[in-house]
Amino acid sequence: MRNISLLGASGSIGIQTIDVIRQHPEHFQLVAFSVGKNIEIVHELLNEFTPKIISVQSRNDYETLKFQYAAKNIRFVYGEEGLIEVAVAQEADVLVNAVMGSVGLEPTLHAIELGRVIALANKETLVTAGHIVMEAAKKYNATILPVDSEHSAIFQCLQGEKEKNVQSIILTASGGSFRDKSREDLKGVTRNEALNHPNWSMGAKITIDSATMMNKGLEVIEAHWLFNTSYENIQVVLHRESVIHSMIEFHDTSVIAQLGTPDMRVPIQYALTFPDRLPHPTGKRLNFTEIGKLHFEKMDFNRFLCLQYAFDAGKAGGTMPTVLNASNEVAVEAFLTGKIDFLTIEQLIESAMARHSLQINPDLYTIKEVDKETRQFVRSLLD
Amino acid sequence: MRNISLLGASGSIGIQTIDVIRQHPEHFQLVAFSVGKNIEIVHELLNEFTPKIISVQSRNDYETLKFQYAAKNIRFVYGEEGLIEVAVAQEADVLVNAVMGSVGLEPTLHAIELGRVIALANKETLVTAGHIVMEAAKKYNATILPVDSEHSAIFQCLQGEKEKNVQSIILTASGGSFRDKSREDLKGVTRNEALNHPNWSMGAKITIDSATMMNKGLEVIEAHWLFNTSYENIQVVLHRESVIHSMIEFHDTSVIAQLGTPDMRVPIQYALTFPDRLPHPTGKRLNFTEIGKLHFEKMDFNRFLCLQYAFDAGKAGGTMPTVLNASNEVAVEAFLTGKIDFLTIEQLIESAMARHSLQINPDLYTIKEVDKETRQFVRSLLD
Repeated sequence: MRNISLLGASGSIGIQTIDVIRQHPEHFQLVAFSVGKNIEIVHELLNEFTPKIISVQSRNDYETLKFQYAAKNIRFVYGEEGLIEVAVAQEADVLVNAVMGSVGLEPTLHAIELGRVIALANKETLVTAGHIVMEAAKKYNATILPVDSEHSAIFQCLQGEKEKNVQSIILTASGGSFRDKSREDLKGVTRNEALNHPNWSMGAKITIDSATMMNKGLEVIEAHWLFNTSYENIQVVLHRESVIHSMIEFHDTSVIAQLGTPDMRVPIQYALTFPDRLPHPTGKRLNFTEIGKLHFEKMDFNRFLCLQYAFDAGKAGGTMPTVLNASNEVAVEAFLTGKIDFLTIEQLIESAMARHSLQINPDLYTIKEVDKETRQFVRSLLD
Repeated sequence: MRNISLLGASGSIGIQTIDVIRQHPEHFQLVAFSVGKNIEIVHELLNEFTPKIISVQSRNDYETLKFQYAAKNIRFVYGEEGLIEVAVAQEADVLVNAVMGSVGLEPTLHAIELGRVIALANKETLVTAGHIVMEAAKKYNATILPVDSEHSAIFQCLQGEKEKNVQSIILTASGGSFRDKSREDLKGVTRNEALNHPNWSMGAKITIDSATMMNKGLEVIEAHWLFNTSYENIQVVLHRESVIHSMIEFHDTSVIAQLGTPDMRVPIQYALTFPDRLPHPTGKRLNFTEIGKLHFEKMDFNRFLCLQYAFDAGKAGGTMPTVLNASNEVAVEAFLTGKIDFLTIEQLIESAMARHSLQINPDLYTIKEVDKETRQFVRSLLD
């Protein structure tokens, strides 16, 4: 039996994590979780599970829940402190960090300091503070398990292998909603077109990030930190079927790949069972004769400027990935609320990176400050 | 430094094994080898390496070499006893068994009894005596490492994984020289057409076996023994590019695949370095954007009857795989010497299997007898 604490229970990854826990009641138990404003899900989960700690975003919701469930032996908490309490829950064997945004960073660091196993779905943790997180994980002997399908693929391919023998990481990219459009075509695209991902059903922010290829860019930076690989040895290949989730090339020219149907429950479950596996009774098996063909195309860095910016930010290092991420978040939100058109996302990121004075090896305080400043700057361009 | 003994130094796998040893003089040393009638290669290898034991096929060649190299500290041996002496060479850390035919079985068993590491390229060992070989390997704690690209692929995919989590083995098949021909088209095919394999450059026997799909059939039986997998859980998929060398499907629906260029030195070297890897400086790296597409087609068991016969023989077990293998060897030789046409290969195998009275759990003596009887029977059909 593994006890799970879950940050971000009401998001896409959170809901699927609960589905995995539900499928294997003899193996997993939900002992703590957080939600944001979606209180309905707290009631639902309490019909099904018996968590010891629940965190919500607002003090108001906290007070209400505490009153409603006074008879139950549950500790309610709230706010950023609440996220940390869920992250360090004493009862938990594994923390799944599926919270969105930079608010996911500090809970991860607290769990790391306790030497915990952390299934990490929060991108900002590694993108903005990879140097701090990986050093801390090493120091406190914590285990960081990737949840993203690409990083889980790489992690699976590396099992039984030695880091020194890796030649390169080959990340595959579906190309997102607009992969068949030229830059000229992109001028007229709408929010709804952008939200129509060809392979994966995901949240709005990540679906837009797929369309701009920023999602792959953030994954490149995460892969750099997770697998201790230089940016020169991270390749991105356009693979429209998303059947091959990613690959490792070894220096003997052998390539190991992980493949599967587009079902996030597979990498989530793998992180919860690692180093073992469990059956996935409701999963769809790959059928190669049905698939018929797999395609690979060269990644066009001039077509997908955000991917180029991510490589640039990653190679620059220091505070630059924080600028990349913060400017992208504000820009994508502006696109989703109809304030800007699609191609302006890139322009805003480029402007933010161009004006930034790089600070190397930033501490958490500096990262937060740069994040805030960048958001303010990009918002000022939107007025 | 690993010391290598090599059975079958003048064959295709043997020559490539020597190439791997040559590329890494700081890691590998050739301490013993056997050849058949190709004595020229003995002279060549003695210019380059300092083996302690050399085995040849005939007593005559043995006498000549012993005289010629009397000044050197080399032990010459010959015949089937000679193969065994190379197999158990005291100086060796790894035995590469790349000898062709059923003569490869006994040396493997002798090395197993010493608990050795055996890189196995000899198909007959597992096809005819898989039950004896795997039981002995377990008993004496010997390590059997596959050399064949498909089995090496599966073995690589299984690293860091547990056998209990395997759902199925997916063997890929290029389809051989005649993959685009119907059974009707096969009636007129010539020896030279059959020898023109689209992807791999190999010996004549195995190239014909690829064209009939018997090669894949023998691999299915080997996979059954090597990976302790039932025939129901071994799939064969037609994959014309031979880029994916084979795959493992786990019960969580995740699939791990090994990919590479068609270079046998990669699996050979992997067997010599396992569980580590070494660079392959003259190897060609896979380039996915150059490859562009990978194709998968359903295997047609009515088109490729030999594959069906192999599954039938494997499932029947006992002496039936020996009949399959022996009848195939005689039939392929008859095809290569122009005695029969291509489709008669299948008919001879079918006849041999149809008349055979199955013996379960045969010992080595029985296997040898059945092998001999089958060859006699098939030859009698050729007269």
